[in-house]
Amino acid sequence: MTSKIEQLKTYLAEIVDLAYISNLLGWDQETNMPPAGVKERGEQMATLARLIQLRMTSEELLRALEEAEAEVAGIDPDSNEARLIKVTRREVQKRLKVPSRYYEELSRASVEAYAAWKQAREQDQFDHFRPFLEWIVALRREYASYFAPYEHVYDPLLYEFEPGLKTKEVQQIFAELRPQQVALVRQITSRPQVDDSPLYQYFDPQKQWDFGVEVITKFGYDWTRGRQDKSAHPFTSSFGLNDVRITTRISEKNLTSGLFSTLHECGHALYDQGCDPALARTPLAGGSSLALHESQSRLWENLVGRSKPFWEHFYPRLQEYFPEQLGNVPLEAFYRGINKVQPSLIRVEADEATYNLHVMLRLEIEIQLMTGDLEVRHLPEVWNTHMQEYLGVTPSNNAEGVLQDVHWSHGYIGYFPTYALGNLISVQLWEAIHRDVPNLEEQIRRGEFAELLGWLREKIHRHGSKFEAPELVERVTGQAITPQPYIRYLRQKYGEIYGF
Amino acid sequence: MTSKIEQLKTYLAEIVDLAYISNLLGWDQETNMPPAGVKERGEQMATLARLIQLRMTSEELLRALEEAEAEVAGIDPDSNEARLIKVTRREVQKRLKVPSRYYEELSRASVEAYAAWKQAREQDQFDHFRPFLEWIVALRREYASYFAPYEHVYDPLLYEFEPGLKTKEVQQIFAELRPQQVALVRQITSRPQVDDSPLYQYFDPQKQWDFGVEVITKFGYDWTRGRQDKSAHPFTSSFGLNDVRITTRISEKNLTSGLFSTLHECGHALYDQGCDPALARTPLAGGSSLALHESQSRLWENLVGRSKPFWEHFYPRLQEYFPEQLGNVPLEAFYRGINKVQPSLIRVEADEATYNLHVMLRLEIEIQLMTGDLEVRHLPEVWNTHMQEYLGVTPSNNAEGVLQDVHWSHGYIGYFPTYALGNLISVQLWEAIHRDVPNLEEQIRRGEFAELLGWLREKIHRHGSKFEAPELVERVTGQAITPQPYIRYLRQKYGEIYGF
Repeated sequence: MTSKIEQLKTYLAEIVDLAYISNLLGWDQETNMPPAGVKERGEQMATLARLIQLRMTSEELLRALEEAEAEVAGIDPDSNEARLIKVTRREVQKRLKVPSRYYEELSRASVEAYAAWKQAREQDQFDHFRPFLEWIVALRREYASYFAPYEHVYDPLLYEFEPGLKTKEVQQIFAELRPQQVALVRQITSRPQVDDSPLYQYFDPQKQWDFGVEVITKFGYDWTRGRQDKSAHPFTSSFGLNDVRITTRISEKNLTSGLFSTLHECGHALYDQGCDPALARTPLAGGSSLALHESQSRLWENLVGRSKPFWEHFYPRLQEYFPEQLGNVPLEAFYRGINKVQPSLIRVEADEATYNLHVMLRLEIEIQLMTGDLEVRHLPEVWNTHMQEYLGVTPSNNAEGVLQDVHWSHGYIGYFPTYALGNLISVQLWEAIHRDVPNLEEQIRRGEFAELLGWLREKIHRHGSKFEAPELVERVTGQAITPQPYIRYLRQKYGEIYGF
Repeated sequence: MTSKIEQLKTYLAEIVDLAYISNLLGWDQETNMPPAGVKERGEQMATLARLIQLRMTSEELLRALEEAEAEVAGIDPDSNEARLIKVTRREVQKRLKVPSRYYEELSRASVEAYAAWKQAREQDQFDHFRPFLEWIVALRREYASYFAPYEHVYDPLLYEFEPGLKTKEVQQIFAELRPQQVALVRQITSRPQVDDSPLYQYFDPQKQWDFGVEVITKFGYDWTRGRQDKSAHPFTSSFGLNDVRITTRISEKNLTSGLFSTLHECGHALYDQGCDPALARTPLAGGSSLALHESQSRLWENLVGRSKPFWEHFYPRLQEYFPEQLGNVPLEAFYRGINKVQPSLIRVEADEATYNLHVMLRLEIEIQLMTGDLEVRHLPEVWNTHMQEYLGVTPSNNAEGVLQDVHWSHGYIGYFPTYALGNLISVQLWEAIHRDVPNLEEQIRRGEFAELLGWLREKIHRHGSKFEAPELVERVTGQAITPQPYIRYLRQKYGEIYGF
């Protein structure tokens, strides 16, 4: 019975190889490539993308898929085989609906829009980016049109990054979350501020690097199957189940930037390293959706890495690395410092309590751009109004406002909500872990992470992308994705730190 | 008229992309890849090789090639277009003659033979490697059979690495070279030996690295289009005309190992960096044959880097890097030290005067293996007899004898002669450069390399692989490949150093 599935897997394995190879080209571009290599690298990435598209829509694959579908009818729908075929069908259908010509135009538009965005941000000239963003928005609406009829014009975009979730569902989650998070931030900012100045001294970069390595080694990052490098923007990339690399950036004058980047990316990497080897070289290998991936990175970065028990174990060690800078800073002061809440303009610098508000603002704007309720030319004022309403701050220019993120210039509309969903899911899982591992805090206080990692492997990592986020969250926690655990978490943590 | 050629070029550009991508995977494997990544990387390389083979033998390409051939009939045979088609036809024909099944078996045999060779060398057990080498030899004879009728069974193998040269020609060149080189080595070894002990002290690795970087920057290596990394075995690899990387290895206790590796690889890289941009993304991009490539690396490593004028400029600088180690070593003593001649067992450690003898020994053995005049089981004794005859030394075991090189285990038979041919060509070109640039030594003495590099660019580099080695050497020097300049060079250089 399995011969047809084997045939399908053989065909898919080559496509998976090409995708991993493309990841390697991207990783090398960010970590090693000499500057003049950029044009040729672009051509090589385009060639790979074209080959993948060709193979993912080839008659050969469609035939193999249909034959395999016939074969699995009736077998356990949760088996690797059944899920492989389901996920392959989903990806193939998505690619079949959109003409190749569209991707070529989007790719061209992205290159030009990215260049325009860079200049516009540098010179704080929104109008320079405007026509390119209009082009991108038009293209994304065209993309949606290939999936008509749809419930919501934003659904096909969300589907690209977070299959299994509808716009309406995300809106409901965020509608429940927003007023509570806004109220919480107001409550926090009405209290006396904590002092985080000890974090902004000179910290030797090599020592920062070494401490980060020490921590993630204890987390369980497998160095025989990965490595860490430096890049302008930290990221994680996989070239197979046994080669999952992370990058970080280190700032000499800011202890937290490099450290929490390393912890964050390690969280992503643990997910990919934890996949069941039986899924290797199939489209099920590696993590599921962006939101689930982000739930893992945020769990290790924030729920572990910014927690009191974690620092009860690691702070004495950090003080050994930096006796001059931290020798006289008590644990409690350090802990408050790394958890300081300060509504600010830039998403990537936002703290745990305000981060989601940045994301929700972007989702609202993206939806309105897609429905046509908002025109690109009105973006700056709408952006600033929302910032004031959600966070109580207003950008003094567009460079630190609507122009701050690169995503739209790349054509990524539908991507942002996954960041906030990842935060929500991380705490939802965290509560479930605590039910199964009641002494988790104690373990963390001892610097022990094996049981935590084991739980995540068993419940999340090993499944690769067999299950979409809503399904997996429900299986593991018994509930649909909900913001309540996250709200509870924020209230308790910041109530304690800010005393309310 | 150019529409058919443009069509061909578009098709070939994707194949060239895939070849560059494969180079990147190989580079990453040697420089960065975590150990556990090796199996998946192998699968990815195999997928790329399969795609390249498929495309190089596709009906689509054959049709495009035929149409383009019809178009170029009558145009300047030296034009980029005419040469592109000629070289493409050569490569396509080569691939068409050999069934894909053959490459799959060779690939499998190489993997197993490599593992067996590694173990055999470690344990000095030739018999462990023997059956695998017999398999490889049988496969290489099978390969030759696909090209029958041939003048010589070794011709098709040579053709793989050095198109344009026949076995008979190489044998004639070597027959002329060998007795003179053997006699020269005897003459040298009859003279008092020079002292090279100052080269074997502790030299700080970072300072060694920095000095090497300083030198090749002066040579003209373009760092915006390249970089240097560390690897177990130094090599050069290109991922486009604007991304040509080198690697080196540094030994703390041996100054020359890392330095001359860097100079050698820089020579390869200057060749690839100097290609005419009009040839980018075509099969003509990058250097021509292995012998021509080696002529460039050896020119910068030996004819420049081991010359007196070079060190008259750089030695004071090197002494600044290492005042303790070299402050009291006079230039003349240093110069003699780095040019010490000592017949020895290991090819990769051989000096200029003895290197070719190692290569000629291998060629004779390879030819006899291919004709069947020599059986694999007799290899060790034949090896040792030749070593005594050519170099006056006999290995005490097979690990430092017949098992020393990795090449055969990879299935590379036909590769070795290109090393010696590269040496010969380097000096043949060197004499031609001196005719055109009479004050070259003076320029080198001033640390100026622009005119030398300019000459090489104009005569060699810019042509990429438009011309095969014999043709290009004849065009540039007015002569076929000949060993006489090399013999003259060795006699003069070592006559001076060893006083005869």
